[in-house]
Amino acid sequence: MARTGRRPGGGSGTQEAILDAARAAFSESGYDGATIRGIAGKAGVDPALVHHYYGTKEQLFVAAMELPFDPSSVLPAILEPGLDGIGERIVRLMVTIWDSAGDYNPFAALLRSAMTQEKAATMFREFATRAIFANVVKAIDADRPELRTGMVASQMAGLIMTRYLLKLPAMVQATPDELVAGIGPTLQRYLTAPLDLPSG
Amino acid sequence: MARTGRRPGGGSGTQEAILDAARAAFSESGYDGATIRGIAGKAGVDPALVHHYYGTKEQLFVAAMELPFDPSSVLPAILEPGLDGIGERIVRLMVTIWDSAGDYNPFAALLRSAMTQEKAATMFREFATRAIFANVVKAIDADRPELRTGMVASQMAGLIMTRYLLKLPAMVQATPDELVAGIGPTLQRYLTAPLDLPSG
Repeated sequence: MARTGRRPGGGSGTQEAILDAARAAFSESGYDGATIRGIAGKAGVDPALVHHYYGTKEQLFVAAMELPFDPSSVLPAILEPGLDGIGERIVRLMVTIWDSAGDYNPFAALLRSAMTQEKAATMFREFATRAIFANVVKAIDADRPELRTGMVASQMAGLIMTRYLLKLPAMVQATPDELVAGIGPTLQRYLTAPLDLPSG
Repeated sequence: MARTGRRPGGGSGTQEAILDAARAAFSESGYDGATIRGIAGKAGVDPALVHHYYGTKEQLFVAAMELPFDPSSVLPAILEPGLDGIGERIVRLMVTIWDSAGDYNPFAALLRSAMTQEKAATMFREFATRAIFANVVKAIDADRPELRTGMVASQMAGLIMTRYLLKLPAMVQATPDELVAGIGPTLQRYLTAPLDLPSG
């Protein structure tokens, strides 16, 4: 029996209540501010049940926002082979995920909200920073890892924006192989090459 | 006297009516579909008066949307010195314009609408294609000029999105000189270097 006595400890009603509470908490408090304990309280269940169904806070976010991929399972494929060829791997993986997402794409919806609402921007920024950027920053073996990661994020955000949201014809018509060959070297340079930044 | 007899041929009331009619026409019919004649008709004035106040359709669009720059006056500064250093010139100019725009930035509003509404996306895409991309494509002296221009657009869209809309800390904290040194070479390569695209 559920500790609170308000909800049975299983079944899809409980899971929906947890996801609803999670969406509300992430939107309201941001990714950093939301807690499993607070979400459990709002859903009227024990925190252990939230962990049981959804794992970590990151995995709960992925489930609640219906993201097409879980960074914690995708990043190893990008990072573990090392920095050699990492630029091309990032482009190929993201284009594969987005090309196959089709018209129903909750990640696009999240990105749209993040562009238009301050709270959604905070939530998106915090999630991307903790779940994605922090791991990329750690993998970089060069100066200015945060700036390098930010520039990678800028190119990838722009690729997604122009190919999938604004639908610029040249970017829609490009094949995945062309995008890998064209944009992969950009990311490779951002992550591994000397940047020749101005001093001071 | 105004030909139509409905509005006096001058004064700020007429100019406001023209801008209102222009915004409605561009939103409804897209940039390509809207005409000076149709906008004049909707505003109840002679088309010559629209040209008199606002010049070309492109200049009318810039005025109606309150864009922070007019591509027809900005592009020569980028394109006329030639392809040498063009990547850095693009980044420096865009960062200068956006950094100085501050919180009141109608271009950001336009970009947000284009991300969220199909009709605004069409309008934005058509305007960018006619007023900006077409001129860049003509200046490129290499294979695949449309794809090259599209990749430049993707990096610049992502720079704007991450620095000014999503406000990723690493991209907000970067100085203009760092962005020029970091991202300029990307655009330079997209515009001028061999791309090693897959054949077929």
